Amino acid sequence: MTLSIDMNSDLGEGYGAWTMGDDAAMLSIVSSANVACGFHAGDPSGILETVRQAAQRGVAVGAHVSYPDRVGFGRRAMDVAPTELAADVIYQIGALQALCAAAGTRVTYVKPHGALYNTIAEDARQGEAVISAIKSADPSLALMGLAGAPILKRAADAGLATISEAFADRAYTPSGTLVSRRESGSVLHDVNLVAERMLQLAIEGTIQAIDGTVLRLQADSICVHGDSPGAVLMAARVRQVLTEQGVAIVANSKRTG
Amino acid sequence: MTLSIDMNSDLGEGYGAWTMGDDAAMLSIVSSANVACGFHAGDPSGILETVRQAAQRGVAVGAHVSYPDRVGFGRRAMDVAPTELAADVIYQIGALQALCAAAGTRVTYVKPHGALYNTIAEDARQGEAVISAIKSADPSLALMGLAGAPILKRAADAGLATISEAFADRAYTPSGTLVSRRESGSVLHDVNLVAERMLQLAIEGTIQAIDGTVLRLQADSICVHGDSPGAVLMAARVRQVLTEQGVAIVANSKRTG
Amino acid sequence: MTLSIDMNSDLGEGYGAWTMGDDAAMLSIVSSANVACGFHAGDPSGILETVRQAAQRGVAVGAHVSYPDRVGFGRRAMDVAPTELAADVIYQIGALQALCAAAGTRVTYVKPHGALYNTIAEDARQGEAVISAIKSADPSLALMGLAGAPILKRAADAGLATISEAFADRAYTPSGTLVSRRESGSVLHDVNLVAERMLQLAIEGTIQAIDGTVLRLQADSICVHGDSPGAVLMAARVRQVLTEQGVAIVANSKRTG
Amino acid sequence: MTLSIDMNSDLGEGYGAWTMGDDAAMLSIVSSANVACGFHAGDPSGILETVRQAAQRGVAVGAHVSYPDRVGFGRRAMDVAPTELAADVIYQIGALQALCAAAGTRVTYVKPHGALYNTIAEDARQGEAVISAIKSADPSLALMGLAGAPILKRAADAGLATISEAFADRAYTPSGTLVSRRESGSVLHDVNLVAERMLQLAIEGTIQAIDGTVLRLQADSICVHGDSPGAVLMAARVRQVLTEQGVAIVANSKRTG
Repeated sequence: MTLSIDMNSDLGEGYGAWTMGDDAAMLSIVSSANVACGFHAGDPSGILETVRQAAQRGVAVGAHVSYPDRVGFGRRAMDVAPTELAADVIYQIGALQALCAAAGTRVTYVKPHGALYNTIAEDARQGEAVISAIKSADPSLALMGLAGAPILKRAADAGLATISEAFADRAYTPSGTLVSRRESGSVLHDVNLVAERMLQLAIEGTIQAIDGTVLRLQADSICVHGDSPGAVLMAARVRQVLTEQGVAIVANSKRTG
Repeated sequence: MTLSIDMNSDLGEGYGAWTMGDDAAMLSIVSSANVACGFHAGDPSGILETVRQAAQRGVAVGAHVSYPDRVGFGRRAMDVAPTELAADVIYQIGALQALCAAAGTRVTYVKPHGALYNTIAEDARQGEAVISAIKSADPSLALMGLAGAPILKRAADAGLATISEAFADRAYTPSGTLVSRRESGSVLHDVNLVAERMLQLAIEGTIQAIDGTVLRLQADSICVHGDSPGAVLMAARVRQVLTEQGVAIVANSKRTG
Repeated sequence: MTLSIDMNSDLGEGYGAWTMGDDAAMLSIVSSANVACGFHAGDPSGILETVRQAAQRGVAVGAHVSYPDRVGFGRRAMDVAPTELAADVIYQIGALQALCAAAGTRVTYVKPHGALYNTIAEDARQGEAVISAIKSADPSLALMGLAGAPILKRAADAGLATISEAFADRAYTPSGTLVSRRESGSVLHDVNLVAERMLQLAIEGTIQAIDGTVLRLQADSICVHGDSPGAVLMAARVRQVLTEQGVAIVANSKRTG
Repeated sequence: MTLSIDMNSDLGEGYGAWTMGDDAAMLSIVSSANVACGFHAGDPSGILETVRQAAQRGVAVGAHVSYPDRVGFGRRAMDVAPTELAADVIYQIGALQALCAAAGTRVTYVKPHGALYNTIAEDARQGEAVISAIKSADPSLALMGLAGAPILKRAADAGLATISEAFADRAYTPSGTLVSRRESGSVLHDVNLVAERMLQLAIEGTIQAIDGTVLRLQADSICVHGDSPGAVLMAARVRQVLTEQGVAIVANSKRTG
């Protein structure tokens, strides 16, 4: 039996004349691309180019859906009514699905972005809106969310497949949540340490919390970044260490064990 | 054998708190709804509500795709590069497809809106972009365009189904094009005259041009408006006269003869 | 000595091809127009038309500044950082100032709109951002806010002129806040009752709370609506009763006592 | 008597999380900053930061006004009606004026951007709209345009001050227009050649056309770019050669001879 885990990253986050991140580099590292759908980033021709490259690389495509807040990059909490949020999510999924069809690939999962991601991790009202949106747009789509967050249980209870993710460069509390970015030590910068932690996560299903506690953490995917040269190097190192130690990097939609 | 023709109208053209036209009235008159996709009008929850009502009424749904120009309502010519235009069209089609899926219906055709409609009637460069977009998003979608315009031949040559439409309230030149809105007599206001003209079109396949010439005009659909109470009355009268005279009002996607 | 009070209403809330409210009617009733600045509503040419009409009528112009949320009409709370919010407010004030200059008038006050209005009534962080924005854009501008709300004291402490407003059609709690729209009786529909309440407010500086308590309420301005024929009638009735009883309707910027 | 010329560059062209160009570097080179106003680029807090830095550096600020086309970066021709265009320009000027006031500086000129720049160079209809917009917003603002283009004469005839500019890295036709970017040799890459050409322009008022002809070209300002490290180096070299040869780099608004 071969061990495997998914690696995912945010891609297609340019907009018109503006670029962000090194999509080409990341597409050679990750197995899943969270592709912006136009609400926080991404214009149609840029998105199409991204999903074409993902298709060529055999990288799975997820809909990186967001609040409608381009100038805030989807990072600002918004009090969007559930019916509006659900329709926004359906709209974004569909737009990406058609662009994927044109590129010869398809959307296999949905990952809410930024403030929406954080809000629905806990908030039932907006979370149910996202779940119902996915079910009504395409119930075969999985929902990607924070490992251990209530949203994943809600989604599973509603009949959706789920993908739980861990963050490669983030510290964890003893209870398995992320240490807030406002606290010191919340973000890890040591490339080798990060790679070793992810290896332990993939093989043993555990991660060391910020206080030294060893936690069980079930994660289907590892989230890595590509927004700086250093981030790309970290992602590459995680992939290298995992594959060298026999952990295959495979998209959730393509894994069988 | 039963005669039939399609009637289409622009719907779902509100945006957020703003409304436009009497969608409910028009859905009881037409057989096809050209639904805004968010680029000139339409926000996701408003579009979803419109396609739900269309589904309940058995009205076919078309993607009313536009240049990205909400403040100009898609009425301003834009020099959009073909690759950008194609991606914009795919994006809009997909967004509407997913909202239709959520509403239990589907998109069956594409009708470019406003300035895009006028530009591609003749312009090969943007026209080919729209055709290629439809083919790559979903080649089963038909393209609706101005009866007699070169775009319909281009689409047919490219393997797309086409829907040719006539405008109920517009005068025609002897060569079969629309009389420009800048010229007097270009827009018809006599409800009964309009209804009789459409009856003649449906039964005999002819229409009288502004100079009295009788033209052959092959039209699969009649475009009517719903943006004023008078417009709704005209649309209703066209439907009434046609059905009373044995011409069924049936969406192109549902017609067999 | 002549008693006087200001009447204000939200105007210029169309967008491109979309209209909202009866601006022409309201400009013959109110003394102050809260004009949308493009973030929740209003496009430049529509705003210019509104301020031209306001100038012709001698109606004072206020900048109705909002969160950047056109599709949500500025009604959704957003967690905007203070530096971003301040810049957004300055931008909107300036845009309206230039359109007013082109129309031969000027902006005399700022009224935050929708969710921003509600948030800053209490929230010090966003409130200070709005206050600092006004001071840095043009410290001669007054801030209009809910009579009795902490924001007005904060603005005054910062050296800004303030305009406290009462809502003609809203019920008040015994502590002088608005009864939530979710509770029954929160919105008043009896035109004559509303007019009498506003007369009492203007002459005696008191208003009857929902439980019958008579409150002291210092209000410089009365907010009325123009978004429906009934709303316009109510506004007109308020004006009529006030002027018949000797209370002049005068913009705050033009009042001397 | 000291010779002097202005150097201008496009700045403030980020948007939200997206950046573009090296504003800090360019502010140490140029005397005038064409600052985006939100229609093709620039969000309020980013614009405010740019004009604060310009104020600190003593760099003059111009309003870089555009068609409303963020996704197309204002580079796509749009058939905007003159009344809409004029209002769009006023809106943008005012927004920038208020942000400048908050930063302790002011707008001294207007430079249309991208497709608008190219269109009004020749097109009288849109050109007159821009001229009337500037006059009605603030008639003390100068209009910056292509040296020799009809728009500058139109603006002068209408009573506006004008700033004629030459492009440092572009080849000229014998008739004094720019060689189209589609033709080979249209863009110059040799840093020293470019600097020598600009020196000749500043001192002798002449420039060598692509066919060798020596043209008279009256230019008040030299346009340089900052969108790549190479572009910044070219701009710096132009400044160095000019100042070493006794040509001061001074904003038009600050020059007296």
